[in-house]
Amino acid sequence: MPLIQPRTPPGTLELLPREQMVFQHMLDVIRRGFERFGFVPVETPVFELKDVLLTKSGGETEKQVYFVQSTGAIQQGHDAELALRFDLTVPLARYVAEHEHQLAFPFRRYQIQRVYRGERAQKGRFREFYQCDIDVIGKDKLDPAYDAELPAIIVRIFEELKVGNFTIHFSNRKVLLGLLAGFGVEDAEKQKLILREIDKFDKIGADKVKAALVELGLNADAAQSLLHLITHSGSKDEVLAALRTQKSEHPVFRQGLGETAQMIDALKALGVPENRTRLNLKIARGLDYYTGTVYETLIDDHPEFGSVCSGGRYDDLASYYTKSKLPGVGLSIGLTRLFDQLRTSKLLPLVPNTVQILIAQLDPQLSSSYLALAAELRHAGFNVENYLEPAKLEKQLKYADKSGIPFVVLLGPDEKAKGIVRVKDLAAKEQSEVTPAGLIEKLRTLIPI
Amino acid sequence: MPLIQPRTPPGTLELLPREQMVFQHMLDVIRRGFERFGFVPVETPVFELKDVLLTKSGGETEKQVYFVQSTGAIQQGHDAELALRFDLTVPLARYVAEHEHQLAFPFRRYQIQRVYRGERAQKGRFREFYQCDIDVIGKDKLDPAYDAELPAIIVRIFEELKVGNFTIHFSNRKVLLGLLAGFGVEDAEKQKLILREIDKFDKIGADKVKAALVELGLNADAAQSLLHLITHSGSKDEVLAALRTQKSEHPVFRQGLGETAQMIDALKALGVPENRTRLNLKIARGLDYYTGTVYETLIDDHPEFGSVCSGGRYDDLASYYTKSKLPGVGLSIGLTRLFDQLRTSKLLPLVPNTVQILIAQLDPQLSSSYLALAAELRHAGFNVENYLEPAKLEKQLKYADKSGIPFVVLLGPDEKAKGIVRVKDLAAKEQSEVTPAGLIEKLRTLIPI
Repeated sequence: MPLIQPRTPPGTLELLPREQMVFQHMLDVIRRGFERFGFVPVETPVFELKDVLLTKSGGETEKQVYFVQSTGAIQQGHDAELALRFDLTVPLARYVAEHEHQLAFPFRRYQIQRVYRGERAQKGRFREFYQCDIDVIGKDKLDPAYDAELPAIIVRIFEELKVGNFTIHFSNRKVLLGLLAGFGVEDAEKQKLILREIDKFDKIGADKVKAALVELGLNADAAQSLLHLITHSGSKDEVLAALRTQKSEHPVFRQGLGETAQMIDALKALGVPENRTRLNLKIARGLDYYTGTVYETLIDDHPEFGSVCSGGRYDDLASYYTKSKLPGVGLSIGLTRLFDQLRTSKLLPLVPNTVQILIAQLDPQLSSSYLALAAELRHAGFNVENYLEPAKLEKQLKYADKSGIPFVVLLGPDEKAKGIVRVKDLAAKEQSEVTPAGLIEKLRTLIPI
Repeated sequence: MPLIQPRTPPGTLELLPREQMVFQHMLDVIRRGFERFGFVPVETPVFELKDVLLTKSGGETEKQVYFVQSTGAIQQGHDAELALRFDLTVPLARYVAEHEHQLAFPFRRYQIQRVYRGERAQKGRFREFYQCDIDVIGKDKLDPAYDAELPAIIVRIFEELKVGNFTIHFSNRKVLLGLLAGFGVEDAEKQKLILREIDKFDKIGADKVKAALVELGLNADAAQSLLHLITHSGSKDEVLAALRTQKSEHPVFRQGLGETAQMIDALKALGVPENRTRLNLKIARGLDYYTGTVYETLIDDHPEFGSVCSGGRYDDLASYYTKSKLPGVGLSIGLTRLFDQLRTSKLLPLVPNTVQILIAQLDPQLSSSYLALAAELRHAGFNVENYLEPAKLEKQLKYADKSGIPFVVLLGPDEKAKGIVRVKDLAAKEQSEVTPAGLIEKLRTLIPI
């Protein structure tokens, strides 16, 4: 029988165990951060019913959807009834609408699962990737105070992830929309187009944005004044002060200004370090879905990563499924892409091996002692592997080295006779002798648990 | 626009947050158990290439496969290239074969992910469910000592899960196969059929099994002697002693006997409580895939749950993908089904809410104080939620109650004036007053962290 070439589908990220431990560590840090702020876990099925998932007809998104069909259904000529989720927002909307009466509002959920998109295969594009989402959903209303809480969580998480300095850039779409209305651009479609141009600022530069704004109906003075505002490089308070000098009395602008001011105050009260967040009016987010605060997160030394955590405020989560009005605010970390970028840039955090100790097998006659010793060390809280294959010590040490296990415990007939145990520190290339009674204490000095 | 009914596909288990916390706790316990024994994490993509996944042609399994296809591929009339994994064993085989030269052997991996089967929709059958697998894979050989390690891990995990008393039943297919050969049944097909009959013993009873054995070519004396052996209800040592009285010198029998004896010794050395494992020769496992030790785990008071954790020893993991011989031994917990059964039987373990404290908003003027207090309590290690919506205290307490948050911190103008903070214990319906400086200490007495 010819062999089948073992290989993963394109656009998926599969890791070797040592890297998987790093990924798992990052997932753990993110989850712990979400839980520390009182968010509750939700998991949804990987697939949804097609008519539930694809509420909006057509569009680029639908082309990227993966449909799912069982062999039986295919044989019977049925169309696919199921489709893989392409984000965690639609499943959240479905979840909240489905379980509305059993949930307490504001509903604060986190969800860390993989999503699927039938992307064209190319470097850095994933067809399967983790999203780590948090959202707060209100019933009928949701206080703007929640908008400050989300970046505070992200600051905590990214500091713990140790991925270098980072900045959460935020803005409030109402500020720009209100200003545009004040400048006479009242048409919602035109406003959206202008916001999209502004969002491209860092890519295409001031001149092109200005030209586009004028073309979209802004007069040259207004365009200039807008560009001046959005390129303000000062502190949050300074940008806010500059906004306050705007003469606009447009209610949307005033509301955006008020929410922004409240958010800045709340960030201070939450103890978020000043330089971790920036009021950056160039952030408009392409998605029309967002109606207030919007966020993007950049790794300072690697702007080429793009935003590693984005989101914003929306007016109504689940209008396709329920008549209840469910405003919310959310943020999402695209972990698979971030991990891949950090790995390529050799910036992955150092994470200890989850296997802490290997007990070598120096003499098969002593098997029972090795098993009993492992049980004792596990009871003391260590993660311990027994090497149970008869093999030369050299081979066992090579195994520990290749696996990245930091410590090897040696107990052979010689050690037994002498009443000692040896602990080999593979990284330090050191070996120490302890009494069996002193082993746990010795290991505690080497391994923090 | 008419509303779309929000609903999950049949055969999926979606939980409300409090239940999701219990599920997450069980996943955490399982993972911690696997890691404590030095197993390393692996995750594989949810889908595999069709030709890689479906190495065996036809069969019941293939009918249950879900195929995956993107919109683009459907439009172009392509056949599905991808299929959802239906277990974690085929992906493991593919993984080990694909990364063989980068892995260290024995390769000890755990994998906790969901798998997919296009089952007929019926109660207790899931189309999406979690499997929690551990396997040890050797290169060319794998010492039988590893067979004892796996049940030791499962004992640790199920004790920590607190799902009631349980017993891991194990056997070794070589013992029965060797005995059958000794009785003159040398034909491998017949041997398999006999093992399948024996596996049905608890369902169909002694008489029917005996009749089937005779029909399959065993003489009546041999069948009687075999039934006598496999229904032995004694301790492991007693069953082993009974086996040793068998006169068979068949090498497969002797090997099975030796492996069983070694396993019993190793279980003792690992400190596994005597009554947690049982040598039960009726356990044969239907799958021909297994070649030595086989395991099933029963909840003592709920045999109707069936086996909640099963597995065994196999000769060659990945013969479809590589010429290397990769013997292994593995166990799998079907967590979704177990969770569902425990829930139905009201046996789910009690798990504290991950949200420990709600800081109520008694006065919107004090918002900043509430945010700062939350930051302080989080820094002290508590999982804290701020209620940031202006609302009556009654509504906030109802919210905490519905969410299952155990403690509410109250700090209003009155408390400020008195220099105190109140802590409300919702379960005990008690309220205590502390100074702001004594709050953390007080909470530490209430919440173990």
